[in-house]
Amino acid sequence: MPTYTAPVKDLQFVLHDVLNVSTLDIPGYDEMEADFTNAVLEEAGKLTGDVLAPLNAVGDQEGCRLENGLVYTPTGFKEAFEQVKEGGWTGLDMPEQYGGQNMPYVLGTAVGEMFSASNQAFTMYQGLTHGAAAAILAHGTDAQKDKWLPNMVSCEWTGTMNLTEPHCGTDLGLMRTKAEPQDNGTYKISGQKIFISAGDHDLADNIVHLVLAKVPGGPEGIKGVSLFIVPKFLVDDEGNIGARNGVSVGNIEKKMGIHGNATCVLNYDEAEGYLLGELNKGMRAMFTMMNEARLGVGMQGLSAAEVAYQNAVDYAKDRLQGRAVTGAENPDGPADPLIVHPDIRRSLMDQKSFVEGARAFILWGAKMIDEAHRNSDKDADGLVSLLTPVIKGFLTDEGYDMTVKAQQIYGGHGYIEEHGMSQFTRDARIAMIYEGANGVQALDLVGRKLAQDGGKHVMAFFELVKTFCKDNGDDEALKDFIEPLKAASKDLQAAGMYFMQNGMKNPNHALSGSNDFMHLFGHVCLGLMWAQMAKAATSQLAAGAADAAFYETKLATGRYYMARRLPATSMHLARIQSGADTVMALDAEAF
Amino acid sequence: MPTYTAPVKDLQFVLHDVLNVSTLDIPGYDEMEADFTNAVLEEAGKLTGDVLAPLNAVGDQEGCRLENGLVYTPTGFKEAFEQVKEGGWTGLDMPEQYGGQNMPYVLGTAVGEMFSASNQAFTMYQGLTHGAAAAILAHGTDAQKDKWLPNMVSCEWTGTMNLTEPHCGTDLGLMRTKAEPQDNGTYKISGQKIFISAGDHDLADNIVHLVLAKVPGGPEGIKGVSLFIVPKFLVDDEGNIGARNGVSVGNIEKKMGIHGNATCVLNYDEAEGYLLGELNKGMRAMFTMMNEARLGVGMQGLSAAEVAYQNAVDYAKDRLQGRAVTGAENPDGPADPLIVHPDIRRSLMDQKSFVEGARAFILWGAKMIDEAHRNSDKDADGLVSLLTPVIKGFLTDEGYDMTVKAQQIYGGHGYIEEHGMSQFTRDARIAMIYEGANGVQALDLVGRKLAQDGGKHVMAFFELVKTFCKDNGDDEALKDFIEPLKAASKDLQAAGMYFMQNGMKNPNHALSGSNDFMHLFGHVCLGLMWAQMAKAATSQLAAGAADAAFYETKLATGRYYMARRLPATSMHLARIQSGADTVMALDAEAF
Repeated sequence: MPTYTAPVKDLQFVLHDVLNVSTLDIPGYDEMEADFTNAVLEEAGKLTGDVLAPLNAVGDQEGCRLENGLVYTPTGFKEAFEQVKEGGWTGLDMPEQYGGQNMPYVLGTAVGEMFSASNQAFTMYQGLTHGAAAAILAHGTDAQKDKWLPNMVSCEWTGTMNLTEPHCGTDLGLMRTKAEPQDNGTYKISGQKIFISAGDHDLADNIVHLVLAKVPGGPEGIKGVSLFIVPKFLVDDEGNIGARNGVSVGNIEKKMGIHGNATCVLNYDEAEGYLLGELNKGMRAMFTMMNEARLGVGMQGLSAAEVAYQNAVDYAKDRLQGRAVTGAENPDGPADPLIVHPDIRRSLMDQKSFVEGARAFILWGAKMIDEAHRNSDKDADGLVSLLTPVIKGFLTDEGYDMTVKAQQIYGGHGYIEEHGMSQFTRDARIAMIYEGANGVQALDLVGRKLAQDGGKHVMAFFELVKTFCKDNGDDEALKDFIEPLKAASKDLQAAGMYFMQNGMKNPNHALSGSNDFMHLFGHVCLGLMWAQMAKAATSQLAAGAADAAFYETKLATGRYYMARRLPATSMHLARIQSGADTVMALDAEAF
Repeated sequence: MPTYTAPVKDLQFVLHDVLNVSTLDIPGYDEMEADFTNAVLEEAGKLTGDVLAPLNAVGDQEGCRLENGLVYTPTGFKEAFEQVKEGGWTGLDMPEQYGGQNMPYVLGTAVGEMFSASNQAFTMYQGLTHGAAAAILAHGTDAQKDKWLPNMVSCEWTGTMNLTEPHCGTDLGLMRTKAEPQDNGTYKISGQKIFISAGDHDLADNIVHLVLAKVPGGPEGIKGVSLFIVPKFLVDDEGNIGARNGVSVGNIEKKMGIHGNATCVLNYDEAEGYLLGELNKGMRAMFTMMNEARLGVGMQGLSAAEVAYQNAVDYAKDRLQGRAVTGAENPDGPADPLIVHPDIRRSLMDQKSFVEGARAFILWGAKMIDEAHRNSDKDADGLVSLLTPVIKGFLTDEGYDMTVKAQQIYGGHGYIEEHGMSQFTRDARIAMIYEGANGVQALDLVGRKLAQDGGKHVMAFFELVKTFCKDNGDDEALKDFIEPLKAASKDLQAAGMYFMQNGMKNPNHALSGSNDFMHLFGHVCLGLMWAQMAKAATSQLAAGAADAAFYETKLATGRYYMARRLPATSMHLARIQSGADTVMALDAEAF
């Protein structure tokens, strides 16, 4: 059975040594002293390691079951959910007014990594609720907020997001679900929604579905889509739960992974719904929280890689097989541990250098979201919007690959379900798909974000890299970082230039390279993170920090990334620069 | 439900236009006229598409069950197995003397691709039997061959390979299973073997286990391992099945995939066994057929990619979502099919160019195995031995990635089990692990095969590439192929040079790059295949071949590989040339 140990020290390193959160002029950040964040992270670490992690395999093996129209979660989920609620973890970064703790999003994100890593399927129940509550917070009337939020912040009631229909996922303009206006100002919602995560379950007294639907007679396509609050049980003005609403579970899907989370077909049959935000502005309302939602999924890529890596390390140290080529390292034993072998090291270093780089990237993104929301910082908002598809797409692609590498270290023991390594890959796989499939992320990046505000934000990113390299170019201790970062950034700029020069003539020249560009960009971001972490580590070492071994390890891990992973940028550039010709050469019939 | 259509035309292209099999001076190849191979492939295509493919999902969903010590296969497997046996498919390349059809291995391989693609779990029952029969054919006494082979060639009895024990997989020197010699020349086998594919089932009257075990008092470690024939039921001298032998099924594993094949824990308790080959030469006997066995697993990588690709294409043509950026292509419909989008194309072209390149690579390898066996061609044997770890490791790593890409095209519909795309990835995953995990393949390549016979075979490979480029460098029609192939081959040579110059000082400098070298080598091989296929296609076009569209498509697909996939070689080279320092920097405790 796999285990999970929360990486508190590394999270603290990023928060304090790299981002220096407690010194930043962002409302709420002054409370983020190291002792405080450490206490929060330690508590979250205990809960996730001791309670949620042991339920991860249970959820996978039992799955959810549908009986008489109701969904039942796996053994132990209900009790664990109560513990999470009692600890106040569900409203960490929600306003105090609705029962939350008003902590910065960056701290919620650090805690969120632990929740996802220990039990992704379980964490989605509260994650979806958080997303739905955030949408109500952003677009609801005061009356709606008062009615729905307190119970959602505490997770007495949970939430869902209803976008997909059988014939449309990405292309929501094709949507058929209808919302008929009623005389009393409510709507009757009818239609079928699929792939609704946490769509039904036994963890909460009520479920607040946010549903996209079209009001008949409205504008065609995506412009006629509105967002509605549709509760499982109706709620009266005093907040009492009343009759069952017209929404039922048609089925729960058999999936590759995240078995502990019920993925539902929801049938709406004249269900009572309440317009959330403006009529026909449903997509905008649903996507207001898109950066957070997508950052949250990117984090799942990191989380899956982290827990899989931890268990791969344990196995590599424990399993005795073969001898080190440079001489026995465990001469008294029957064989050496796997970790002596260079190719095992190569795999573990791939994983470790990804995980730690991704952690810094995610927390940097979360900090920018705080700046955008709490300081109304438009530059931070623009930069994090640009980077959001990279965070989501790159980190989930890579995160998945890392779980596969971790599984590989177990050999045949990774393929059987007993050790849990298969589950990590099967669960991680969904993050490449939901919340906008990664191809859509790449399209968003190249087709939309790059040119947003006249390309201002991508220029700001390059400026950031350039300034860092200039300011630290003379630092001998950072020489293994600055030059590779410069070279990688140059590749990224050349790719952007290629798109500018060729995308106008034929947009396919840009879009054929979108996936490679997203990965190229991701590597440059992780390269930047590693350069910044290296600077932080050398500063700590120069200042005589107590735990020198931690910082030395940090530097060695970063050097690996720069030497071994960053060279991918030139490959991506070559692919991009080959343009659309070979990609689009064939007629559809020739496939 | 996914479907499978055998790629008969493409197999014929490789056999006849590229390899020119019927003109080769190899015993049995003169029968390989295009009409004959076409008839065989068409028949195999019907059986696999109509009978085996529909059982693939059944096998995944039902799995095998263990009841009262006996394993039962999924619904329909028994009937399908009878059809396979009746068609004579199980002994295609086995000697006529034992009931086989004595066809070349290259044709058996072409047929094998179809079997694996349509139903990998099912095909393993006959695949393991073929491997065990081949070992008996190579090492058995005449009496042993007469006793066991006829029933194994016909698959009346099936076979297994028993290597792994709970504490040892790769490092078989740690083996504990014992073989006590008896006065009558037999042995009593006792011990536990795990991960035994097709270890028990209801498809055959008997199962012939080939078991590695140690005779007490023999040499230490791997040098004391011998190979034994241990049947499930004892067989008398007249070939009649008698009493149950002392081998029982301890358990069947719950696995990520290949659910239709029973992966057994087998407990041997003084089971009667018969020495196969020489005492203490068990590893050699087991690995005589290693090139074939590993090529067969490499083929599974190709097969999984092929069937996943076929279904991804169907979905991409069928599913309407979004509009082409260059203008609607299905203006009368609600949206355009997915296949209009450049990033979908990119993914499909990755898959198509891999599958067709891998097919040529596999069949080239199979042809060399025929040359080695039927012509005792030492050069062919040396070259295919060198390339075997590349075929196994590169094609299964890439094949798996391709199934993930195919699954991604389905979006959320790829994550639910209904469409079968998840099964392709879950089944394909095992091929990276069994028959020597891919890390072991890379070690075999760099640590052993490169330097074998004084590096003669790798030099022969480079000579092959060089000669091809020289002979065709002036051909304008091939210019998109020759220059990229030269560049990639130069990267491979530079990597080999790096190992030579640095591996002596510190073998970790070579072994840290083993995985990258295997992939670099794989890309060069597929680059060479594409260049050869391009030459064959241009020749056919110049000769006015009837199906010009097929050959034009072949050229366009090859150009994609050269432009978009081959640039990976420079990334692998950069990683290799960064050496062992960053890979081995950390103490084990630092992970």
